[in-house]
Amino acid sequence: MYYFDDFKIGDTFDLGTITVTEEEIVTFAQRYDPQPFHVSAEQAQESPFGGLIASGWHTIALFMNLFVRVILNNAISLASPGADEIRWLKPVRPEDILTAQLTVVESTPSRSRPEMGIVRVKWKATNQNDEIVLTMLSTHFLGRKP
Amino acid sequence: MYYFDDFKIGDTFDLGTITVTEEEIVTFAQRYDPQPFHVSAEQAQESPFGGLIASGWHTIALFMNLFVRVILNNAISLASPGADEIRWLKPVRPEDILTAQLTVVESTPSRSRPEMGIVRVKWKATNQNDEIVLTMLSTHFLGRKP
Repeated sequence: MYYFDDFKIGDTFDLGTITVTEEEIVTFAQRYDPQPFHVSAEQAQESPFGGLIASGWHTIALFMNLFVRVILNNAISLASPGADEIRWLKPVRPEDILTAQLTVVESTPSRSRPEMGIVRVKWKATNQNDEIVLTMLSTHFLGRKP
Repeated sequence: MYYFDDFKIGDTFDLGTITVTEEEIVTFAQRYDPQPFHVSAEQAQESPFGGLIASGWHTIALFMNLFVRVILNNAISLASPGADEIRWLKPVRPEDILTAQLTVVESTPSRSRPEMGIVRVKWKATNQNDEIVLTMLSTHFLGRKP
């Protein structure tokens, strides 16, 4: 189990890797982000990206899946009020392998609710060429060690 | 067609409405955000939310779908470098009907690329009880009127 008390500023958490398939890129985008360069390999060829790329929201969703499985579902997670500074720094393409890492940037006990604390983490996804493709900050309410 | 030149500070765009079903909430969350209060109506009953709620990423993805269909796929959209200040203000529950609106908050011609401009929009999703459930800022590179 993870508690608020386990997240100290500067701590890093390795979440594992994500492989992005063309099929899932297209399926996600058809429902949620149907821009031509996300849904059609053919039309994407003629786009500035020169080929199919994942929706930035899909990249975040895939990262979130690891974050939940590795950390949040093993903590008393009391939801998130928000996220900031999303930066999609490089396109994500089919068969890319992304490595997902979190770093704690803020860790503050709640003044009004002594049973919880507020943790802010920086997300970093790096592709197989060591290029950072995504950074972001998210905020989480986590239960404290009993 | 929409061009950069059509987005003036203060302009608003009504994107339409989103209805969120329990089935889609669970399907999205199983793959991308499998926290108990997103994937199981039963476990969600015992959570602080008292019932199933949508992943915040799912709410954004549903809004994005409208944004793309109404605006971006009718513009020369050259992708987005990022987004900021995501705030999930209220839970989104099955059968909620959300109204999606954009307001232009910045509109700047590109100095380095005269064929495009940079537009920043504020997202607002409101539920059927007139409660704001989501706000956010996103940045877009859009082609200029020829």
